[in-house]
Amino acid sequence: MTHRIRFLPENVSIDVETDESILTAAAAAGIYIHAACGGEGVCGKCRIQLERGDVRNTHGTGLTEKEYGEGIRLACTSRVVSDLVVRIPDTVGADGRSLACRPKTTRPLSARSLETLVGTWETAPPVRKIALHLPPPTLDDNISDMQRLLRGIRQTLPDSPEPYYDHTELLKELPFMLREANWHVTVILLHGKHAEDPETIIAVEEGDTTDRLYGLACDIGTTTVCGQLIDLNTGATIAESSSYNAQVSCGADIISRIIYSLKDHGLKTLQNKVVSTINTVIEDVCRKATIYPSDISYIMTAGNTVMAHLLLGISPRFIREAPYVPGISIFPLTRAAELGIMAHPSVRIYLYPCVSSYVGGDIVAGVHACRMHDSDEISLFIDIGTNGEIVVGNREWLICAACSAGPAFEGGGIKYGMRASPGAIENCHIHPETLDPMIVTVGNTLPRGICGSGLIAIVAEMLATGIIDQRGKFSRSLKHPRIRQGTDGWEFVLVWSRDSLTGEDIVLTEIDLDNLIRAKGALFAGYQTLLESVGLSFDNLDRVILAGNFGAHIDLERAIAIGLLPDLDRNRFFYLGNASLLGCRISLTDQRRFIERAQVRSLMTNMELSDNPGFMNHYVAALFLPHTDLRLFPTAGRNRA
Amino acid sequence: MTHRIRFLPENVSIDVETDESILTAAAAAGIYIHAACGGEGVCGKCRIQLERGDVRNTHGTGLTEKEYGEGIRLACTSRVVSDLVVRIPDTVGADGRSLACRPKTTRPLSARSLETLVGTWETAPPVRKIALHLPPPTLDDNISDMQRLLRGIRQTLPDSPEPYYDHTELLKELPFMLREANWHVTVILLHGKHAEDPETIIAVEEGDTTDRLYGLACDIGTTTVCGQLIDLNTGATIAESSSYNAQVSCGADIISRIIYSLKDHGLKTLQNKVVSTINTVIEDVCRKATIYPSDISYIMTAGNTVMAHLLLGISPRFIREAPYVPGISIFPLTRAAELGIMAHPSVRIYLYPCVSSYVGGDIVAGVHACRMHDSDEISLFIDIGTNGEIVVGNREWLICAACSAGPAFEGGGIKYGMRASPGAIENCHIHPETLDPMIVTVGNTLPRGICGSGLIAIVAEMLATGIIDQRGKFSRSLKHPRIRQGTDGWEFVLVWSRDSLTGEDIVLTEIDLDNLIRAKGALFAGYQTLLESVGLSFDNLDRVILAGNFGAHIDLERAIAIGLLPDLDRNRFFYLGNASLLGCRISLTDQRRFIERAQVRSLMTNMELSDNPGFMNHYVAALFLPHTDLRLFPTAGRNRA
Repeated sequence: MTHRIRFLPENVSIDVETDESILTAAAAAGIYIHAACGGEGVCGKCRIQLERGDVRNTHGTGLTEKEYGEGIRLACTSRVVSDLVVRIPDTVGADGRSLACRPKTTRPLSARSLETLVGTWETAPPVRKIALHLPPPTLDDNISDMQRLLRGIRQTLPDSPEPYYDHTELLKELPFMLREANWHVTVILLHGKHAEDPETIIAVEEGDTTDRLYGLACDIGTTTVCGQLIDLNTGATIAESSSYNAQVSCGADIISRIIYSLKDHGLKTLQNKVVSTINTVIEDVCRKATIYPSDISYIMTAGNTVMAHLLLGISPRFIREAPYVPGISIFPLTRAAELGIMAHPSVRIYLYPCVSSYVGGDIVAGVHACRMHDSDEISLFIDIGTNGEIVVGNREWLICAACSAGPAFEGGGIKYGMRASPGAIENCHIHPETLDPMIVTVGNTLPRGICGSGLIAIVAEMLATGIIDQRGKFSRSLKHPRIRQGTDGWEFVLVWSRDSLTGEDIVLTEIDLDNLIRAKGALFAGYQTLLESVGLSFDNLDRVILAGNFGAHIDLERAIAIGLLPDLDRNRFFYLGNASLLGCRISLTDQRRFIERAQVRSLMTNMELSDNPGFMNHYVAALFLPHTDLRLFPTAGRNRA
Repeated sequence: MTHRIRFLPENVSIDVETDESILTAAAAAGIYIHAACGGEGVCGKCRIQLERGDVRNTHGTGLTEKEYGEGIRLACTSRVVSDLVVRIPDTVGADGRSLACRPKTTRPLSARSLETLVGTWETAPPVRKIALHLPPPTLDDNISDMQRLLRGIRQTLPDSPEPYYDHTELLKELPFMLREANWHVTVILLHGKHAEDPETIIAVEEGDTTDRLYGLACDIGTTTVCGQLIDLNTGATIAESSSYNAQVSCGADIISRIIYSLKDHGLKTLQNKVVSTINTVIEDVCRKATIYPSDISYIMTAGNTVMAHLLLGISPRFIREAPYVPGISIFPLTRAAELGIMAHPSVRIYLYPCVSSYVGGDIVAGVHACRMHDSDEISLFIDIGTNGEIVVGNREWLICAACSAGPAFEGGGIKYGMRASPGAIENCHIHPETLDPMIVTVGNTLPRGICGSGLIAIVAEMLATGIIDQRGKFSRSLKHPRIRQGTDGWEFVLVWSRDSLTGEDIVLTEIDLDNLIRAKGALFAGYQTLLESVGLSFDNLDRVILAGNFGAHIDLERAIAIGLLPDLDRNRFFYLGNASLLGCRISLTDQRRFIERAQVRSLMTNMELSDNPGFMNHYVAALFLPHTDLRLFPTAGRNRA
C-alpha cells in the first residue's frame, strides 16, 4: 500500500510503500536529515516532528515520554503506516545559520515503464494441456497405447499436425497410466520452434489436470538466481523466490568462475552448484504455491553467456581468451532433468540465446522484454553489473557491446564495498556546510559497508560539496576531521566507528574513487562508441532503459552528475527492473513472443570494444567527474548551488 | 564358388557351393542315398561312384585303398571342390529289385528374388559427412564455435536448411575439438523424418573423415540377432555377424519373455541382455572390418513388437493380455548409447515401426524390402517362426495377421525337435520300399535331433510312403521295425541309437505329428482368412514370398505336400532370406527408401485371427495332410507314385 509523505518546510512530497522508514523516504526525496548511524536509533540524531498521521516504531522510540508526546520521532525507527506530514527541524550550519537542503533527486520512471515499454502480452503459452477421454481398446480396435493417445489428440485438435514424442520414460509409463486412469488423461503439448512445427508431447497425466498448468521463469545471474512461478492458465505470477548463486563460493565474477572451471572437476562443480541453486528456487516457489515441482511444465531461463555454458556443462574457457569465443550461443532445447533440475523428466528448459561472449541471454531477454526490437524509437539499453552491457537501436538495427566496467557498482574494488544487503549504505546526503553525511542503509541497520547506489550517492554528494574535485581527488585545502590520510592514502570518513556495525570507521578512499571513475568511464565510452558506430549522438536517443537490480535504486541526478548516465531529459529514462526475468516471464506466457525471441537475437550485432581505438579515446576522456567535455553534461550540477 | 553335380543314373543336376557334401547335395536334388548316420562316415553305407571331377575328404575316406582307387566315395565325407558326375549305386528293394528314386524337390527361386522383388537401391544414405575448413576466429569474427560450424555448413550446403543440433555432449567437446583439429573437421549429418526436414548434426570429427561412413543393419530376432556392417560410401556389406539373443536364457519364445518381464527387474534384465547381444554383434563386425564401434554413424534395426519393447525397456505386458495392445508401435528415434549400445553418444538407433502386437517391425521391414507395397502384383508374404506372420496385398492395400502357429517349425513341441544347429536332421528321404531314411544333418555330423526343414521333409516322406495317413496317424497295418509303440504312443524310428550322437533312438511321435499339423493348419487357415477378407482366393496370388531363416531350407514340394504352403505354380514362389535384415540394410543405404518405411507401415492393416470364426473353421479343415479339401491341392503328391 502506498502512502504520501509531505516533508516541511521544503514542502516536498514522496509516495512510499507501507513500512518504509521515514529516514529512507526522506533520503529518496532528497531531504537531508542528520543521521549518522544508518537507522538503528543508536545515534539518536535524526529527530523529526510528526505533524499529521501515524507511524509504527521499531527498536523502541529512543525518546523520552515527553518528546514522544510532542510528536517528536526518530526518522530511522519510524515506519510509515499512513499518509504523513513531517517537519524536519532546522539544520544548523557551522556558523549557526539555519540551512535548508534543496531536493535534488530524480528517479527514472518505473511506474509507466511496463505499459510504455513492455506492452501487453497474451496468456497463450507455448505449452498447453488437453484432456482426453479415450475409448478402451477392444479386439476390433487394438492399436497401440501411443497410437490411441495420438488418435485422441488428433480428434481433439483436427487442425494440428501430429505431435512428436521422443521420451522413452513417458512411453514406459504410458500403458500403466492409461489403464489406471481408466483412459481419461491429460496431455501436455509443447510448441515447436516455429509456429507451424508440430508440437511435442512432454507429459501425460491421469485424469483432467487442465486447471493446473505452470511455468517457471528464471534469471540465472552470476550472483543471484531469481525465479517466478507463473500460472499459465491466467498469466499470473503466483510465487517468487531468489537465492544467491551457490557458485559464488567458487568466485565472485564470471572471470573467476571461468578460471575455476578449468580445474579438475571444476566445470562439474560449477554446474552442480547452479543446478542446486535453481532447485532451491523451484522448491521455494512450489512450497509457496503448494504445488509439486513436477507440476511445472516448462522452464524459461536467461543468463549471461558464462552462466549458460556452466549450466549446460560446456567449458567457458575460450570466452576468456582473445578473441573471446563462446562455445555456443544458441542453446539446444534440453530436458531439465538431464541437467539435474528438479522437474518432470520430460520438461524442457529453454535458455535465451546469447549474442557473444559478454552479451548474454539475460541482455537478449531484457531487450526482448522492452521491445526495442519492435519500436521505431531509438533506445539505449543499459544493464550495469560487473560488466556493463549496452544495446542501442530500434526495430531496424540493434548494436550491442559489453564494457569491462569492473565490479565497483557491485561493491568490488571498493574498500568498504559490499552487495546491497542489510547494513549497506544505499543512500547518502552530505550537508553542504557541516559535511556530515546522512546515512541510509539497507534494512535500516547499523552501517557496515557501501553498495553501488550508495557509492553513486556518496561520490555525487562529495563532488557537489567540493570534498572531491573533478579528477576524484580530495580537496587538500578543506580542513575537516572527516577528510584525512589513511593507510590507503586520502579518504573521507562516512561513519565513525561508534556508529558502525563493525566498530571501525567506514571510509571512501581515493583508490575507491579511481575505481569508480574507471567503471563509469568505461560505460560512458561504451555508449559513445556504439552511438558513433551508427552515426548517432546522445540527442538521437528517444529512451534510455535501465535494467538490472542496480537500476532500482539509482538516482538519476546523481548518476548523471558523476557521468555514469548521459545528461538527457529525465523523462526519457525508464527503469525496467530485472529485465531478464521479465523477458523470461513474457515469452513463457505468450507463444507469439516466445517464437519472436530468436529474431531479437539475430537482430543484435555485437561490437568488441576491447581493442577499439575510438573506445580508448572516449574512455580516457571520461575519466573525469562527470567528463572532460562538459558540453556533454549541460545540466549536471545544475541543482547544486 | 558354384559347382554343378550331375547324379546318375537319374541324370539330375544341381548347383552347389564349394565344400557342400555330396550327401547334402543329393538330398537337395531329391536323390536317395542310403545314409543313416547323418554324415560322419560312421555307418559307411552312403557309397557313391565318382565318375568325373574331384572331391575333398573329411574324417578320412572311410574306405579301403582299392575302393578309393576305383572312385568309390562316401557321400557324407566327400566335399565338392569341382564339377562332378556322381553315380548312385542301384538301391535294392526288400524284394531284391533295383529301385530308382524320382527326384521330387523344388526350391523357391532365390537367385532371381533380389532382382525381381527387391529391385535396386541407391547408395544415398540418410547420413552424410561433409568436411569443413573453417576460418579461425578473430576479434572481428568471434561468433561462437557452434555458429562458426553452422556457417561452414551453410556455405558448403547453401540449399539445405540449417541443421538441428541437440546433443550436449557434442557441444561440450566442440570447442576443444575445433582447436585441436586446427578448424578442419568433418560433420556427420542425419536426415530428418521427411525429405524437406532439416538435418541433425550427430557428430563432429577431427580432420577429413569423409571416406569412413558406416552403418549397422540389425535384425533383432527372438532367437538370433543378426548384424551387417554397411560401408555407406559404397553400399557394400563389409562384415556380418550373428549371435544368439542372450534373452534366450529368460525364455525361448516371446510369451515366456513377456512373463519374465513382469518379474522384479525382469524388464531391465531382458533389456540388458538384448543390448549386450547387439554389442557382441557390433564388436564382431567392427573387429572383422577393423573399425571402431564409434565409427558407426547410424543403426537401423527391426524386430518383432516384443523385442522392440524390450530393447526400449517398455513393458510388453499388455501384448499378452486380450485385446493384445502394444504400448507403442511407432518408435521414437533414440540415442543408441542411452540404451547402453556401444556407439558414439550421438548416434541414433531406428526401429522399424510395428503394425500390432504380433505383426512387428521385422515383418514391416520384410514387406518394405520386397516392395509389395510398391507393386501391382498381389503377393502373399509368409514369415514362419514361432508365430507365422502373413501379409497379403499390393500397392493399394496390405492386410496382415499373425497365426499362433506354435513352435513346431523351430523345434518346439517336437520330442527330438531342435534348432538348425549341427546335428539337426535338416533333410531326409525315406526309401519307398525299405522305409530306411536317408539322414542329412546340419554340419554333416551324427544326428541328435530334428529341425524345422527336417521335420517337413520327414512328414512329407512318411505321408508319401504311407507310413502315416492324412490324419497324421501311423499305419497300424504296416509291420516294420521302425514303426512301433513307444513311451509317448506310436512313433517312427528315424535313427537307430548306434548311429545317433546321443546314443538313443531318434524318433518322431504321433504327438509331434499332431503339433506339426496344428502349426501348419493355423498358417494355412491364416492365408485363407486374410484372402477371403479381401474377397480373393489363392488363384489371385501373383507371388508367394517366403521370408525368414526357415524359408532358406524349405522344399516347396514337401511343404505343399503337407499343406504348409498353398499348391500354386512353383514359379510364383520366392525366397527372400532374412527379409527383416534386408529391409534394414536397404533403408540404411538409400534415403529414399528410408523415408518410405513409414508409408509401408501405414498401408498395413492388422487383422486379429484369434477370435475370428472364419479362421476357426478354416483351421479345423486344415488339420489334415495336406487338407480336408483336396481341391485346394491339385498337384500335391503328384510326383509320388
